[in-house]
Amino acid sequence: MASPSPESHFIIGVDLGGTNIVVAAMARDGSRLFGSQTEPTLALEGADAVVGRMARMVNTTVAITMKEAGVPRSAFLGVGIGAPGTVDRGAGLVLAAPNLKWYDFPLVARMTELTGLPVTLDNDANCATYGEWWLGAARGGRNVIGVTIGTGVGGGIIVDKHVYHGSSDAAGEIGHITIDLHGRRCGCGNYGCLEAYASGSAIAERAREALHNDESSILPSLVGGDLAKITAAKVYDAAGQGDALALEIVRDTAKYLGAGLANLLNVFNPDVVVIAGGVTQAGEALFAPLRTEVRRRAFKSVSDACRIVPGTLPGTAGVVGAVASFISQTTGHPPA
Amino acid sequence: MASPSPESHFIIGVDLGGTNIVVAAMARDGSRLFGSQTEPTLALEGADAVVGRMARMVNTTVAITMKEAGVPRSAFLGVGIGAPGTVDRGAGLVLAAPNLKWYDFPLVARMTELTGLPVTLDNDANCATYGEWWLGAARGGRNVIGVTIGTGVGGGIIVDKHVYHGSSDAAGEIGHITIDLHGRRCGCGNYGCLEAYASGSAIAERAREALHNDESSILPSLVGGDLAKITAAKVYDAAGQGDALALEIVRDTAKYLGAGLANLLNVFNPDVVVIAGGVTQAGEALFAPLRTEVRRRAFKSVSDACRIVPGTLPGTAGVVGAVASFISQTTGHPPA
Repeated sequence: MASPSPESHFIIGVDLGGTNIVVAAMARDGSRLFGSQTEPTLALEGADAVVGRMARMVNTTVAITMKEAGVPRSAFLGVGIGAPGTVDRGAGLVLAAPNLKWYDFPLVARMTELTGLPVTLDNDANCATYGEWWLGAARGGRNVIGVTIGTGVGGGIIVDKHVYHGSSDAAGEIGHITIDLHGRRCGCGNYGCLEAYASGSAIAERAREALHNDESSILPSLVGGDLAKITAAKVYDAAGQGDALALEIVRDTAKYLGAGLANLLNVFNPDVVVIAGGVTQAGEALFAPLRTEVRRRAFKSVSDACRIVPGTLPGTAGVVGAVASFISQTTGHPPA
Repeated sequence: MASPSPESHFIIGVDLGGTNIVVAAMARDGSRLFGSQTEPTLALEGADAVVGRMARMVNTTVAITMKEAGVPRSAFLGVGIGAPGTVDRGAGLVLAAPNLKWYDFPLVARMTELTGLPVTLDNDANCATYGEWWLGAARGGRNVIGVTIGTGVGGGIIVDKHVYHGSSDAAGEIGHITIDLHGRRCGCGNYGCLEAYASGSAIAERAREALHNDESSILPSLVGGDLAKITAAKVYDAAGQGDALALEIVRDTAKYLGAGLANLLNVFNPDVVVIAGGVTQAGEALFAPLRTEVRRRAFKSVSDACRIVPGTLPGTAGVVGAVASFISQTTGHPPA
C-alpha cells in the first residue's frame, strides 16, 4: 500500500497561554488550517478544568476538520502542545508554569487519556519561533532566534531546522540575559535582565515613570487620567500619534532590546531574528532604531549576516509551531 | 583492501597565535601526540615570513613523526589550522586578524601549496574549545561553551559534537556580550563588554586602578614598583599569597564572568562550560565565587544541568582542537 500523501494527514496544534487557549488542525504539509478556536484559559479554575477544556476544544476541532476536509478520524496523527514555562518533553511534564500555577504537571499523559491521540509538548516561545520559521517571517532561515514580547520576554532558538532545546530543555530564556549588572530589578529576582526593560509590563512602567516629569504627553488622556491603566499597547498607540514621550519610550525600548540582541548575535550569529508579540504594533518606530542599535553594537560581519523582522503570524504562530514541533519530535525530521 | 586503522593515520595541528605558533602531529584516534614544536610568531616580519615558518614547522613535525612512529609520508592526512580573528572556512581565508594585521589572507591556499597536504582552517577559540571537548575537561559534553581568557576573551560553542559556527562563521564571540550597558569602554568600541572586565588586560588594569586607594597590597613589590608591569598573572600570584586587594580583583572578575556566563547559560543551557587560559592559574579563588555567581543569576534548572570547569589541556588544546576540526570538516563526523 502506498504511503498516504502529507496533505491527507492532520495534526492538532494547541497554544496554551496564561490568558487564552488557541486550537487548530493543520495539514501535515502546512498547507491548510482548519477548525480554529479560541477560549479563555481561566487558570484559576484549576488544572483539571483547563485540561478538560483543552481536550474538548481538540475534539471539536477534529470534528470540524473531518467535516470540512472530508477526512476520517484516522487522518489525525496527534496533538502538539505549546505550554508556558519550563517543560520536560521526554517525561511530558510542565515543570513550572507560574502563570498557571502548574508544577510537575503530567500534561501529555492527561491529554493522551482525554483525546486518545499521541501528544507532544514544547515550550510556547519555542513553538512560536518554530511557527514563524516554518510558515512565517523566518522562513528559509538556517539559524534563527525568536523573541516574543508580551507580558514577559520569551525566546526560542532554531539550529539547522530544529528547535534547539539545550541540555535540560531550558534553552532560549532570552528575557533573562543581563544587559545592565546594576540595573532595574527583574521579576526573576535579578537586576538588569532584558525583560525588566523590554517586556510589555516594563514598557508600561517606564512610561508611567517618565510621565512624572512630563505634562505634554497625550498618554494620560488615552487612559482617562488613570495611569495604572497604561499598557504597552497604549504607548504604541500614542507613539503612532506622534507623542514625544511615547516615542522616546519606544526608542529606549529599541536601545535595550538592541543591546540584548547584539549579545545574542555576537554569540549565535543567526541569519534571522524574528520578533513577535504586541511590540510589533510599534512598527518602524521600534524596528528602525532597533536595527541601528544592533548594527552599532554587534560585529559587522555578524549584523550583515542577519535580518531582523517582525513576525507575520500573529495569533497563529504558537499553534503552527506546536504542529511543527509534533512533526519534529515524532519523526526526527523538520516539517517540510 | 581493508581500510587502515585510525591510529595509523596522522593529522598535523597548528595553533597560530599572536605570540607563538604551536605545531604537533596527532594520531587520528587522539591517542598520541608527536613532534611538538613552539616558535615565536613574529607577526611584524609579515605574512609571508609567518606562513613560511608555519610550513617549515609542519614539515619538521612530519619528519619527526615518520621517524618516531615508523610511518610513511602517506600516513599524513592533512593539516588543521586554528587562527585568531574571523575566518571564512569555505574560502580558506583569514578575514580579519588584527593581532597579525592579516585581512582577507588566503591561508589555506598558501599552506596547501607549501606543504602539499590538504588544509582546513577554523577560529583559534573554536579549536581550543573543541580540543577540550575531544580530549580535555569537557569530554563527554553534549552542548559545550568554551571561554578562553588571555589578552582578550574568546569563545567557542559545541552543539551535538560539532563546533557551532553560525551563519557567517562568526559565532562564539563571548568576549563581546554586554554585561553593563553603561560600563567600561571595550577595545571593540562598545561599552560594558565582558572582555572589558574579565580579559587579562582588563584584570591588570582594574588592579592598577584599585592600587590608587590601597597601600597595603604586595602587588607593587612583585613588579619592582613599576605598576605598568602588573599583569593578570601577577594578580593571581598575589592572590595566591593571600593579598587582600588581589583577592578582591579575582572575586570581582568572578562576578563579571559569572554575569556573562549566566547570560549564556539561560540562552544556551549547556552541560559543560570549560574555561581556559591564564585565568585558570587563579584556581578556586576564581572558580568558587564564579560558580556561586552563576548559580545566583541563572535559572536553577539551567545551572543544575551545567558543570563549570577549568581546561585541562593548557598549551595543547588549540593544536588538539585544530586536528579535531580537520576531522570534522573533512569527514562530516566528529572525532571518535
